[in-house]
Amino acid sequence: MNKTNLELFFNPQSIAIIGASQNIATINGRPLHYLTMHGYEGKIYPINPKYKEIRGYPCYPSIKDVPGPVDLALIVVNYKMVHKMLEQCVEKGVKFASVFSSGFAEAGAEGKRMQEEIAGLSRKTGLRLCGPNCQGGVSLHHNTAAAFSAALNIKPFLPGPVGFITQSGALGYSIFNIAQEEGVGFSYVISTGNEVDLNTTDFIDFMLDDENTNMVFTYMEGIRNGDKLAALADKAIEKGKPLAFLKVGRSEVGSRAASSHTAALTGSDAVFDAFARQKGIIRVDDIEEFVDIAKLMDGISQIPQGKGLGVISTSGGGGVICADAAEDHGLEIADLQEKTIDKINKIVPHFGSALNPVDMTAQAINEADGFWNILQAVKDDPGVDAIVVVITNITGEPGIRMAQDVVKMSAETDTPIIVAWTSGPKLMQEQFDILEKAKVPYYRSPVRAIKSLAKLMKYGTSFHKKREEITLASKQQTTDNNEIPPEAAEAIKNAGKALSEHQAKTLLSSFGITTTKETVAGNKEEALAAAENIGYPLAMKIDSPDIMHKTEAKAIKLNIQNKDQMLDAFQTIIDNARKYDPKAQINGVLIQEMVTEGVEVIVGMNRDPQFGPTLMFGLGGIFVEILKDVSFRVAPVDHKEALSMIEEIRGYGVLAGARGRAKADVDALADVLVKVSRMALTMGPQVEELDINPLIVLPEGKGVRVADALIVLREN
Amino acid sequence: MNKTNLELFFNPQSIAIIGASQNIATINGRPLHYLTMHGYEGKIYPINPKYKEIRGYPCYPSIKDVPGPVDLALIVVNYKMVHKMLEQCVEKGVKFASVFSSGFAEAGAEGKRMQEEIAGLSRKTGLRLCGPNCQGGVSLHHNTAAAFSAALNIKPFLPGPVGFITQSGALGYSIFNIAQEEGVGFSYVISTGNEVDLNTTDFIDFMLDDENTNMVFTYMEGIRNGDKLAALADKAIEKGKPLAFLKVGRSEVGSRAASSHTAALTGSDAVFDAFARQKGIIRVDDIEEFVDIAKLMDGISQIPQGKGLGVISTSGGGGVICADAAEDHGLEIADLQEKTIDKINKIVPHFGSALNPVDMTAQAINEADGFWNILQAVKDDPGVDAIVVVITNITGEPGIRMAQDVVKMSAETDTPIIVAWTSGPKLMQEQFDILEKAKVPYYRSPVRAIKSLAKLMKYGTSFHKKREEITLASKQQTTDNNEIPPEAAEAIKNAGKALSEHQAKTLLSSFGITTTKETVAGNKEEALAAAENIGYPLAMKIDSPDIMHKTEAKAIKLNIQNKDQMLDAFQTIIDNARKYDPKAQINGVLIQEMVTEGVEVIVGMNRDPQFGPTLMFGLGGIFVEILKDVSFRVAPVDHKEALSMIEEIRGYGVLAGARGRAKADVDALADVLVKVSRMALTMGPQVEELDINPLIVLPEGKGVRVADALIVLREN
Repeated sequence: MNKTNLELFFNPQSIAIIGASQNIATINGRPLHYLTMHGYEGKIYPINPKYKEIRGYPCYPSIKDVPGPVDLALIVVNYKMVHKMLEQCVEKGVKFASVFSSGFAEAGAEGKRMQEEIAGLSRKTGLRLCGPNCQGGVSLHHNTAAAFSAALNIKPFLPGPVGFITQSGALGYSIFNIAQEEGVGFSYVISTGNEVDLNTTDFIDFMLDDENTNMVFTYMEGIRNGDKLAALADKAIEKGKPLAFLKVGRSEVGSRAASSHTAALTGSDAVFDAFARQKGIIRVDDIEEFVDIAKLMDGISQIPQGKGLGVISTSGGGGVICADAAEDHGLEIADLQEKTIDKINKIVPHFGSALNPVDMTAQAINEADGFWNILQAVKDDPGVDAIVVVITNITGEPGIRMAQDVVKMSAETDTPIIVAWTSGPKLMQEQFDILEKAKVPYYRSPVRAIKSLAKLMKYGTSFHKKREEITLASKQQTTDNNEIPPEAAEAIKNAGKALSEHQAKTLLSSFGITTTKETVAGNKEEALAAAENIGYPLAMKIDSPDIMHKTEAKAIKLNIQNKDQMLDAFQTIIDNARKYDPKAQINGVLIQEMVTEGVEVIVGMNRDPQFGPTLMFGLGGIFVEILKDVSFRVAPVDHKEALSMIEEIRGYGVLAGARGRAKADVDALADVLVKVSRMALTMGPQVEELDINPLIVLPEGKGVRVADALIVLREN
Repeated sequence: MNKTNLELFFNPQSIAIIGASQNIATINGRPLHYLTMHGYEGKIYPINPKYKEIRGYPCYPSIKDVPGPVDLALIVVNYKMVHKMLEQCVEKGVKFASVFSSGFAEAGAEGKRMQEEIAGLSRKTGLRLCGPNCQGGVSLHHNTAAAFSAALNIKPFLPGPVGFITQSGALGYSIFNIAQEEGVGFSYVISTGNEVDLNTTDFIDFMLDDENTNMVFTYMEGIRNGDKLAALADKAIEKGKPLAFLKVGRSEVGSRAASSHTAALTGSDAVFDAFARQKGIIRVDDIEEFVDIAKLMDGISQIPQGKGLGVISTSGGGGVICADAAEDHGLEIADLQEKTIDKINKIVPHFGSALNPVDMTAQAINEADGFWNILQAVKDDPGVDAIVVVITNITGEPGIRMAQDVVKMSAETDTPIIVAWTSGPKLMQEQFDILEKAKVPYYRSPVRAIKSLAKLMKYGTSFHKKREEITLASKQQTTDNNEIPPEAAEAIKNAGKALSEHQAKTLLSSFGITTTKETVAGNKEEALAAAENIGYPLAMKIDSPDIMHKTEAKAIKLNIQNKDQMLDAFQTIIDNARKYDPKAQINGVLIQEMVTEGVEVIVGMNRDPQFGPTLMFGLGGIFVEILKDVSFRVAPVDHKEALSMIEEIRGYGVLAGARGRAKADVDALADVLVKVSRMALTMGPQVEELDINPLIVLPEGKGVRVADALIVLREN
């Protein structure tokens, strides 16, 4: 990876503002205003030939006139002037430039040309650029506000552990504003604009190494570099810092809008979603969810590693809503131990509930130690990985006591305790202040509290597994045989757009995937010999790289029972194929073992422009065509990941042996996915698409058979 | 319906507080405090032998000592005293009592007995009761705060159009508090407690008639009276007032907690969900969603009747998030007309987007009339039923102008305009105040804005259809033949727990449902005659009410091709059935037409304790068993509703003829559902359960065949 030390970008000793202005209502005037307002301690050099000074700072006609060295230049001039200003920065020896000016690739052909010019300048001279069309960056721990967003009008900054990278300046900084107002502390915020040089992955990389940052959040409209993102996801797991993405453009209209908004390519969303799940990336769908999760990360000392939730509520209804939400979001309402229940029963009267969700009742609320003792009992239960306390309108002393108890207990334990307090801030100001001051995450809505917690707990639960996988995978890569098998090389040699069925199967075979027993017979004698060797019943199909739709061509016959039927079928298949496409290259008739048991599934591979080879799995026929019940993964996948891919589909029970069915050989199926993954990586982009349809999965222990396969090659 | 005029309950001329106290920190002291604090204009009589007066109000030793008449008594005494106090109320001629005291059915056997006593008193004397174990009611338009929740500490009340009924006092009043603090106006709030007399449906009924109320919201833990709720849902549609439910207890744990919290029965959630969809009830899952939708209802002048959304955003990203959310929640991003796009293109530069979602760009934001003109163009587009404006950190004058423009446009049009302003209240206080004062619904999160709007727009879109259906259904009911057909009466006469397959089919047949051609043959001669009459291939099965699992008993043979096979099968089936259950009553062997084409589906009926006969539909086999791809409806259903039930399953494409399949006879299938619905209502509870499995749906125009059916009767 081409690493960049962005330390000086975020925390420069000196900043020049090229195009600075007196008017703080404008983009030109704001950076100086915000830098001074937040107490930036380095040197500030406004640059503008029109002014002698701006609010006490000497203003220079050109950056070349600045007396001292300049670490970072902010460029806020007409887009036509940007290239010239950057050249002057190079002359001056400036290290980094943030280009706020817009009018580049987002604005049409002329802008695009100019953008290419400044990109070229950066490459040639080594001047590192953020933007153009960006809103700049903020380093909250150092009060460096090198940006122009109105969000910086709120002071003081709340420094904290959340690093934030945004591909939309306007939206990103408004998310930052909401989060800061809700008490969430940030380390850095950066708007990346058109990303001609420094891009999202550079900033993720830097923040993962940064010791003030414990979580990296990204607002993303398009992905440019799937490989690097994959490596960074692994690095995030190694570092134990969650990576979270608000990736928009899921819908068709949304993805159209995303492409027109930035110059980025929007990859297929299903692939990104699979990638995120596979790589332990947390995905959020809304800015509020972002704020909710960031608040959690800022408030808890440790990400829980289980799914067991303890719920304590001042109202039965609050507990029920939590139980519903826990089920919706994949958490478990912990079964409390008898010991725990006994302790709670000493406090909660019998018309409350000592079972989880615990219903405190007014009696326990009004007792001085009531809540504290319940909280302690639930916290000490080994099945409880995190606690949600639901508080209704408990005003006055009892409410204050509950807030204080949560704060005190949070200081004593690593078990996250979060509060869903279903009241407005006017009624509950004093209580909310206690929680906020102590950074206890609290929410208005129990559902939002649990949804955020669920995402983080799911991450925590898979964290160690993922870390192990990464270690294994890196060992694996060095021992893997990555040479193309000679049979595969032979199969694709001189091939056109597609391989014939038999060629495709030969290629798969060479990667260790079991196919049906079969032979291509050029004439009836060969067919007869093959039939005797394989044994009846048989399937027979035309073998031609030019006839992809064999059923449509009527060039396929199944369930051939004997010699006479076989000879008949041979002739019919040849005749029909010739009729269907007189120019087709015909290799012969495929004489094939007929598999009569097992479950039909589909295994596919295609290449995503951003993430590369991507695997698809589903049950055959209507399950894929109508129910769209499929799962995706980005290659490489190992056996474990392949199993999770199989288990993920809704119809998994069909393979698992639900309702008295025979269990299918799921292990052998997973093995095929792993081998297809290896095939895709080994063969490289020359194998563009693969459909194994159907792959027949036999009962447990009996393996699988590729019954038909289509391989499409890259057109040269 | 036994109607109650609750006018006097909510707006009494005089209120007695039995158990009143000086101490406003207690439940006893609060009601007087809140009544005076909010300016209740009627007479207030504190009752307590311990005091002469409470804060200036003469205090009476007993209600019998009160000089004037009393409309409403609030009872806040120890539960053991409640019955006595109520007796005194009766003597005094009090019309209504709200019993705040707890310790009744929710607290165990003794409380339950006492609850039954006060219920009996109410029935006997006509004294109408709310509670016990309730928190009382508030009438906001009349400043009557006859309740003790701390939520009433915020003044002044915001009166408005939302009526709210809650089965949980603590949670309900805290929802009320949040909503009021967010600017949502209410007409009434009522906590119903244990509902010994006045219950949720009484209050819904009253609020639907109330002219200050235009939407009724209910927090519900259990349903007691499905029939009445169904009638009220119809009434709500007739009145054009949306009915919305936050019904908890969806999860297994949640539903356990809900039952232990109140004495109510929690019906199956899937049935409630189907019921809500069928009856045009809006269902919400979280208290925040409640507040969001209530805010909408309070702010817009008309519920839109289409699904077309216009989105105008100050940031491309904001538009994309809206597009994603619209797709998730079933709204459509309207295709703007060319005329509209032309108008927008005059304002938005080419690097923005004049297509929906409209991306304004900074240039259009800074132009004085920019936003106004875009808003007008989008509002005038015939495809736009509602508008969402997404505003990022647009501070200062431009932001104020945008807020003012939205307010002005909202006053000019019935098209709802809602705002998702992604900023915190510190940064945007002035702008938010403008929106709040004008009651323009605004949200922090675009997703929440769209989710709420989607629920309301879905309601609006189905509203007229539902209204029409209700009119048709009431006509239908008078012309329907509700007599039990003689064949059905015969089939169930002397039957035990279940009917045999042939009896079940005879019953279905008598309601006009087509079954397979079949005859029960008592011996081989009868079998032979039947076979010749029906024609080969045949299916043959044991006919016995005692053998429900014919496959397990090996008493079923399919695909019988000729006479020899038939005679063989006859003997085998009889022998196997006898071996399987020597005591079984055997009617003979069912000789049955073998249907070899079509799609197998399941149609079922069972009786929900709350909602009565409930229909289930799904595709056969693994679609039901593994994918659980089924839909429910509460009977009666008409043809339209049956079609929507069929179309609702994920696998509908299998019937609809997706991907080159023949379209199945969906109309005939819908007809079966309608007839099963009629059968369930006509036969009444004596037919407890029905499974038609499989029902074979033949290609379009060819109808359906019941191939097997099981009917379970109520045990006497």
